[in-house]
Amino acid sequence: MRVMGIDPGSVVTGWGIIEASGATLTHVASGTIRTASLPRGPQRLKKIHDNLIALIDEHRPDAMSLERSFVAASVQSAFRLGEARAMAMLAAADREIELFEYAPNEVKLAVAAFGHAEKGQVKFMVMRTLRLDDGVELADDESDALALAICHSGRARMTAMERIAQPARRGPARWMRR
Amino acid sequence: MRVMGIDPGSVVTGWGIIEASGATLTHVASGTIRTASLPRGPQRLKKIHDNLIALIDEHRPDAMSLERSFVAASVQSAFRLGEARAMAMLAAADREIELFEYAPNEVKLAVAAFGHAEKGQVKFMVMRTLRLDDGVELADDESDALALAICHSGRARMTAMERIAQPARRGPARWMRR
Repeated sequence: MRVMGIDPGSVVTGWGIIEASGATLTHVASGTIRTASLPRGPQRLKKIHDNLIALIDEHRPDAMSLERSFVAASVQSAFRLGEARAMAMLAAADREIELFEYAPNEVKLAVAAFGHAEKGQVKFMVMRTLRLDDGVELADDESDALALAICHSGRARMTAMERIAQPARRGPARWMRR
Repeated sequence: MRVMGIDPGSVVTGWGIIEASGATLTHVASGTIRTASLPRGPQRLKKIHDNLIALIDEHRPDAMSLERSFVAASVQSAFRLGEARAMAMLAAADREIELFEYAPNEVKLAVAAFGHAEKGQVKFMVMRTLRLDDGVELADDESDALALAICHSGRARMTAMERIAQPARRGPARWMRR
């Protein structure tokens, strides 16, 4: 299963794609979409949307993992973040990719086994999990996007294991009732 | 000049298109995009975006007028509103239509000559300005979208008049300097 994580922002949007094969996670591609050179508003959003669509078409992820936001510095920054998030949501709908949302502490818990991990700790664990070379430099938003992808692949694997385990658990129960 | 006003919302997005010929404003088309039947998130946003693109392609507006929001009931509702607004912004960028934003009290002032006009007063003035038959029933968001279009057409006309007036004012000044 291939998962694309997205950490949206109106100025920097981080993205990261990983391939999950059982418990083995492999880094496929990651980076940032930067819009500071464009005027605020429609053109920035279009760049984010067009880049995400191009990345999806190139890497064909099976699922998208997006950060669920609860807080913002101000109403205005909540509007800006909502606008950027919407570009990821629309790209997922355009390409019919299932979208999953995770709260920041869920992501930290999944990646660093600690819900209040710092950015540096998350980045260290992302690089270890994906066996990235020490020389690789990940941007903060890129690392967060990969962490979102790792978080979802772990969740998806757990759900799949539960699906396998459940019929076996239910089997005897059904059998006993007969 | 043809202006499209948009009052975005994640559940109801109002839209209205008017034709401005000098001081005469004519209603072209208006309505609402409703998404309550769809699950929250990507699918709702896609419906808003796809409908706006179809309306733009059908009516070919020269400008888009969007409400500039400053307040929201909560951070969550600011995110939702930002997401819906982003669909209008992206549609404008996709079709290379210039986007203008107006604060709610600017719109009320332009339409009802009173910055704190109530919804009913705005609707009454929208219908009178566009000479709509009393039998026509406008939804609230549809009326707000038409008010946004009226507000921009007035602003655009004023700017055009200033452009005509300025060379005449500057003419004598340049002549005197010679």
